[in-house]
Amino acid sequence: MSIVTIIGSGMMGSALAFPARENGHEVRLVGTPLDRDIIDHARKTDQHLKFDRPFPKGIKYYQVEEMDEAIKDSTFIIGGVSSFGVDWFAENVLPRVPNEIPIISVTKGLMNTPDGKLLCYPELWRAALNKLGKTNELCAIGGPCTSYELVAHDQSLVAYCGANMATLEMMKATMTTDYYHIMTTTDLIGIESAVALKNGYALGIALTIGENIKKSGNEDEIHYNSQAAVFLQASREMSVLMNMQGGTQNSYFVGVGDLYVTVYGGRTRKVGILLGKGLNIDEALDALKGVTLESLVVASRVAKALKVKAAKGEINLADFPLLMHVDEIITDKKPVNIPWEKFTRLY
Amino acid sequence: MSIVTIIGSGMMGSALAFPARENGHEVRLVGTPLDRDIIDHARKTDQHLKFDRPFPKGIKYYQVEEMDEAIKDSTFIIGGVSSFGVDWFAENVLPRVPNEIPIISVTKGLMNTPDGKLLCYPELWRAALNKLGKTNELCAIGGPCTSYELVAHDQSLVAYCGANMATLEMMKATMTTDYYHIMTTTDLIGIESAVALKNGYALGIALTIGENIKKSGNEDEIHYNSQAAVFLQASREMSVLMNMQGGTQNSYFVGVGDLYVTVYGGRTRKVGILLGKGLNIDEALDALKGVTLESLVVASRVAKALKVKAAKGEINLADFPLLMHVDEIITDKKPVNIPWEKFTRLY
Repeated sequence: MSIVTIIGSGMMGSALAFPARENGHEVRLVGTPLDRDIIDHARKTDQHLKFDRPFPKGIKYYQVEEMDEAIKDSTFIIGGVSSFGVDWFAENVLPRVPNEIPIISVTKGLMNTPDGKLLCYPELWRAALNKLGKTNELCAIGGPCTSYELVAHDQSLVAYCGANMATLEMMKATMTTDYYHIMTTTDLIGIESAVALKNGYALGIALTIGENIKKSGNEDEIHYNSQAAVFLQASREMSVLMNMQGGTQNSYFVGVGDLYVTVYGGRTRKVGILLGKGLNIDEALDALKGVTLESLVVASRVAKALKVKAAKGEINLADFPLLMHVDEIITDKKPVNIPWEKFTRLY
Repeated sequence: MSIVTIIGSGMMGSALAFPARENGHEVRLVGTPLDRDIIDHARKTDQHLKFDRPFPKGIKYYQVEEMDEAIKDSTFIIGGVSSFGVDWFAENVLPRVPNEIPIISVTKGLMNTPDGKLLCYPELWRAALNKLGKTNELCAIGGPCTSYELVAHDQSLVAYCGANMATLEMMKATMTTDYYHIMTTTDLIGIESAVALKNGYALGIALTIGENIKKSGNEDEIHYNSQAAVFLQASREMSVLMNMQGGTQNSYFVGVGDLYVTVYGGRTRKVGILLGKGLNIDEALDALKGVTLESLVVASRVAKALKVKAAKGEINLADFPLLMHVDEIITDKKPVNIPWEKFTRLY
């Protein structure tokens, strides 16, 4: 039996408690300072505030101040914070985890640097660990897997990635169930790039849904030619970006699968549809009560990095007409005007 | 002004009359022997039996016995027959078209040979032309474009492919509108392979929709993790197949876009959902009144070719667990049992 400690009890972190506990492992679920109500509720009811079914029996719940107790003797740590909790994780979790305990994170995102690089979070955390003189293994989880469908035991396929295949295989053996399937790969930067990049592109596809609804005047007329055209273009731009990041083709495929699920994944889709219907970005976010979206953050970070690289002559912005338009919409608050004819260029 | 003659007045052939005629060209729409009612109805009403909006004004309609008159002085011919009309097209149309008139076809499919090759229809028609001592240019149209959405003027992106870029650019100039966008490429075999291959894979994705409906007992619970997992696997197998066929990466992207739209495209989806719910292939086809599906034909042809190639040691069947399972379902009438764990292998 292993001890799996999940830090961050949002939906994705908490969903991973299901396969771990169902496999008979000790599971410790730790809330961040934002998760206090989730942990209180789970202690009373054995259910997550946002899930429609209870946790498996026997999970142990911890508030943030009990984190050290939860970390003690863990086989590995799952980092379950959102991309807005990256710094919190670096400052409050990394220093507390003994070197011999590996960490695997579900946090998706990329950070652009002034010289046009795109770093994934495990790279940022590695720098933080180095400063602390620490050496924990850092792995990551990517791939098409929404939390509520994992909780429903829907068949799901994800990638566990990191430098050490033995560690990844140990984690896979701990977490695999008859519905949760895990590929293991050393291409950490490729997987992390793929699953971050897909966010902005999912927004791009959703734009066409809104445009078709506006044109037809019918909320139910969800046509697919134009979604597919943007999906085609997105798959091309993602491929160029993946090559730029040095990712493998296997990781690219994971990104394409993740793009597919993200088009249907809640908030990004909603913002895209509102934009496609004619709202500008401020109006769309207002309509959704000012929700802050990881998809928007990633798209503009990638666009910033690409502009730096283009200025240095390292890439050609003409390879990215879709991403550049998504960035215009988000950053310059421009109206939707998809550059369709540019998509006829060969790649 | 050009003269665009469309032979085959099914939905896709007829849909192409819209951009051609809206661009001011003379458009001649010719029915096959199966299209007699469509042409009669169009002559009376200027509307296709299956479209909810009328044709643009001024299209000329021809019954099959008037084909020679329709072909005369055409700038190019669009072949609009289904894959079940391939032989009819070779025997009844190709001999009638003067050498200087190029032909572009929307017919999608692949034919397997005893030695494991997969030929696209323009290759078969080239052989037929050779026998006739004829030299017409043969081009093809592929990509994510359903006919009724084209008729609705939804934004669509397709590929025109053939040996001669000047001919393709002429056709593009004739057909491009502000909603119909055309890339041109000399990778005919790549495009034709991509858009044929996607059919069997779309069926595979639809299986998971049926499985989730069965599991949840709720017709509306259309989950996406498992669709995305199969989409991921399909995109990998299609990539291997495209390399095998010698297609370009650009054509692979077109196939991925086409796969996206085909998952939502009517009959293939319906059969897949019924199979996923637990019907066998005979029961599923019965439930849909014995409809014959191009997706089923293509999947089993590709599987046959792959088995021949595997026996010769040219490919590894372990690269195609999804296609092999789809073939088992269709050919051996096996129940759905998706080999999820096999999808965790790296590509």
